[in-house]
Amino acid sequence: MSGNETAKAEVGLVGLAVMGQNLALNVASKGFPISVYNRSYAKTEQCVSRAGKEKLGDRLTGYEDLGDFVQSLQRPRNVILLVKAGAPVDATIESLLGHLEPGDAIIDGGNEWYQNTEERQRRVMEEKGILYMGMGVSGGEEGARNGPSMMPGGNREVWDRVSSVLSKVAAQVDDGPCVTYIGKGGAGNFVKMVHNGIEYGDMQLIAEAYDVLRTLGGLTNAELESCFSEWNKGELESFLVETSATIFSKKDDQKPEDTEEYLVDKILDKTGMKGTGKWTVQQAAELSVAAGTIASSLDARFLSGLKDERVKASAFYAELGLGEPKPLGKVDKAQLMADVRQALFASKICSYAQGMNIIKAKSLEQEWDIPMGELARIWKGGCIIRAGFLDQIKQAYQTNPELKNLLMDPSFAEAMVSRQEAWRRVVAMAVQSGVSVPGMSNSLAYFDSYRRHSLPANLVQAQRDFFGSHTYQRVDKPDTEWFHTLWSDAQSADSITTTGYNN
Amino acid sequence: MSGNETAKAEVGLVGLAVMGQNLALNVASKGFPISVYNRSYAKTEQCVSRAGKEKLGDRLTGYEDLGDFVQSLQRPRNVILLVKAGAPVDATIESLLGHLEPGDAIIDGGNEWYQNTEERQRRVMEEKGILYMGMGVSGGEEGARNGPSMMPGGNREVWDRVSSVLSKVAAQVDDGPCVTYIGKGGAGNFVKMVHNGIEYGDMQLIAEAYDVLRTLGGLTNAELESCFSEWNKGELESFLVETSATIFSKKDDQKPEDTEEYLVDKILDKTGMKGTGKWTVQQAAELSVAAGTIASSLDARFLSGLKDERVKASAFYAELGLGEPKPLGKVDKAQLMADVRQALFASKICSYAQGMNIIKAKSLEQEWDIPMGELARIWKGGCIIRAGFLDQIKQAYQTNPELKNLLMDPSFAEAMVSRQEAWRRVVAMAVQSGVSVPGMSNSLAYFDSYRRHSLPANLVQAQRDFFGSHTYQRVDKPDTEWFHTLWSDAQSADSITTTGYNN
Repeated sequence: MSGNETAKAEVGLVGLAVMGQNLALNVASKGFPISVYNRSYAKTEQCVSRAGKEKLGDRLTGYEDLGDFVQSLQRPRNVILLVKAGAPVDATIESLLGHLEPGDAIIDGGNEWYQNTEERQRRVMEEKGILYMGMGVSGGEEGARNGPSMMPGGNREVWDRVSSVLSKVAAQVDDGPCVTYIGKGGAGNFVKMVHNGIEYGDMQLIAEAYDVLRTLGGLTNAELESCFSEWNKGELESFLVETSATIFSKKDDQKPEDTEEYLVDKILDKTGMKGTGKWTVQQAAELSVAAGTIASSLDARFLSGLKDERVKASAFYAELGLGEPKPLGKVDKAQLMADVRQALFASKICSYAQGMNIIKAKSLEQEWDIPMGELARIWKGGCIIRAGFLDQIKQAYQTNPELKNLLMDPSFAEAMVSRQEAWRRVVAMAVQSGVSVPGMSNSLAYFDSYRRHSLPANLVQAQRDFFGSHTYQRVDKPDTEWFHTLWSDAQSADSITTTGYNN
Repeated sequence: MSGNETAKAEVGLVGLAVMGQNLALNVASKGFPISVYNRSYAKTEQCVSRAGKEKLGDRLTGYEDLGDFVQSLQRPRNVILLVKAGAPVDATIESLLGHLEPGDAIIDGGNEWYQNTEERQRRVMEEKGILYMGMGVSGGEEGARNGPSMMPGGNREVWDRVSSVLSKVAAQVDDGPCVTYIGKGGAGNFVKMVHNGIEYGDMQLIAEAYDVLRTLGGLTNAELESCFSEWNKGELESFLVETSATIFSKKDDQKPEDTEEYLVDKILDKTGMKGTGKWTVQQAAELSVAAGTIASSLDARFLSGLKDERVKASAFYAELGLGEPKPLGKVDKAQLMADVRQALFASKICSYAQGMNIIKAKSLEQEWDIPMGELARIWKGGCIIRAGFLDQIKQAYQTNPELKNLLMDPSFAEAMVSRQEAWRRVVAMAVQSGVSVPGMSNSLAYFDSYRRHSLPANLVQAQRDFFGSHTYQRVDKPDTEWFHTLWSDAQSADSITTTGYNN
């Protein structure tokens, strides 16, 4: 135990990996006394020592004993958890329950599956009258320290109690702090999950832009850096575009300092992942929401993982005469960069349209009543997908809270129309050249399907009626009327009586 | 009760919607005595009457009382269920348990979620020593009557006991009956689920071919019929291509007989669906298997369902100057048909590669040891995806049982290489013209990613290390070594200690 104990702490924080340490330091630096605890005391000591170095020692107190930690908090107590999702959270809750009192609150800041949060919320209330929130925290380590975007959901009265602290701790943008109450139950976790799915989409789209410019345009890393820096000044302004520019500028840190080799070229093209992207894709399917761009970014990670197979396939197909994609013979780099920039922005709009619609569909299903515009606003700062562009999304929902799709917002629609020709050029060129752009082409297919009066789904319905008597509606009859046809002479009239559930 | 009772029946069948009736008539027509039962007796009477008309009355006996039905069966008894998946199956099992004896078997022929089958298998064995199988049945009503493809999984001894009946009942192809033991537990249901996912993919790819030919090529329904009939004589020979040709030939049956209007043009472009396609997509994500073509076919159904939104979006974008896609000015129809044919076949290979890999991954995870070549063989006849092409898949797995991807089979690889130029032409043309081809372009992205030595995933890994300290591997070091870089001056060395679980 160390530090000043005269005042009870406003907030407690359990789990002192770097995210937890950084968030605790953030709270302290905003002037709020905080108590911290970690199962292994070494991390607590590390955190306290960091607080000391940052002259926050009088506001951050570490405890070796969980009971002491809990006793050090103002009542009703607010304990933030930053431990690994799943079993570690359950274990932490279990130990806390022995010390907390009715009316105290637990706020889980991890990437938890939203239903786990809802179960825990029921359980701790039932067992001990404890309140519970699941709060998505985005921004990585740097965000945790300097201002993350936070998505708290669960018991509203906990929010009322901690909002003054969280509003200071969160990233600050022109229109307020990057935190708002998302909704009851697991709403906060769900929204953070989709945030991560959108993040997957953004990263994949940027990777495709990089691939087209590098592989077909022959751009050097220096050119890529300047291209992405330039992009970051306009409508693509975002953390991930800025980050990419920085990455392209980095020399290989395993080489002597004057090396001309770039680090990005040395990184193995195998992408890891956690569960949130996968969950987003599974939930989109569950909710009947098309989310091809986000799904393709997950698939791209899966395929990146098959490095050995890909290396073999590349050699195998080269032997059959189909080699790796090569730089285009004569390319107007300025034109290509301009086109890719348009393609990236248009693709991104479609990806966000998908993500927002997943959230909207779930909010309706669960009656969470998630404020879509506010949500876009709190993503403007602090989080990994932070971007100027989110202000446009905020405005779209503020203008029309019932907006069915971002593509129907006049300002986005205009952006789509003015960019679509360049976008089609980029995708067609990549398709012709053998560079896969699944994110961009899924976005384009989404756009072209969504704005299409008549899709070829009439044939699919005819087939379903043909082999499974699933029946169909007609374009010239009310959609309450269903029809069935005996399509071939071999079919018997008996089949009219079924809905053919088996296929 | 009706019919001949002197001999005990070899098989019992519960659930007499059209699928059940047809399968029962099929069993009887193969010479096996069968007892049938349905909760509402009217359907039983209908089934018995149909049996009479088909001169199968002496082999098919209907019962009004479930006890009498069970008593009429040879012991150990084999009861096939063809009732709706989910609660109705549970209710049926519940009533049967009161009558069955240890060693008897229940075979569920519905599209059940594989884990439900596994739970029921455990439960009925524990409660009453009853054996259990989950058996996928494909082929729709016509297949049930004349020979379906069947995918039984679960207790192997039930298979040993009913294989002689099922082998006669199944569709027959050149190399045997379209039924084989798939594996223990829910393997049969799982494989049928993926079969349906592949079916979604096939239908979407065909719909896209139709859309490109109709919308961009300006083909009439008569031309489409002749095109698909021609295709059905070659490498695309399949039930669904044949069915499409028949559909294009059908005149509007709500109009006088001499109408020149075609039915397919009157069908509303809103596609319905059951749960199996969705499950396939969710399982692919769960198993880390890329399955973009199948996922895009599910998304296409979702988007087709938004008819009202699409009609509005179409008008909205037309007003902004972006109209619906139009026929190409001057088009060589023969060349276009030839190109689309190549595109369809190449896309289909990728779709099947995805489906087969979902099954392989699950089989490994669950130790089901599914015979991949045999599986392809039993899909050659009876089921909705039946096609000549499946013999090529069978051969691919027979040649190399360890085949990691159909794209690595020499014969498929050659097919891909010879078709890829036409395929790229079709996708690029559709992309340029505003016709969405998500299935074809996802297949192409799958192909181009899988055969790619180095994907742009290095940038994604760099970003993940940048904001989350997720670390990365290097191309010039053993893949057991992981690296972390301080990408920007703002980052502190503290971050090295974490794996940044939060993003």
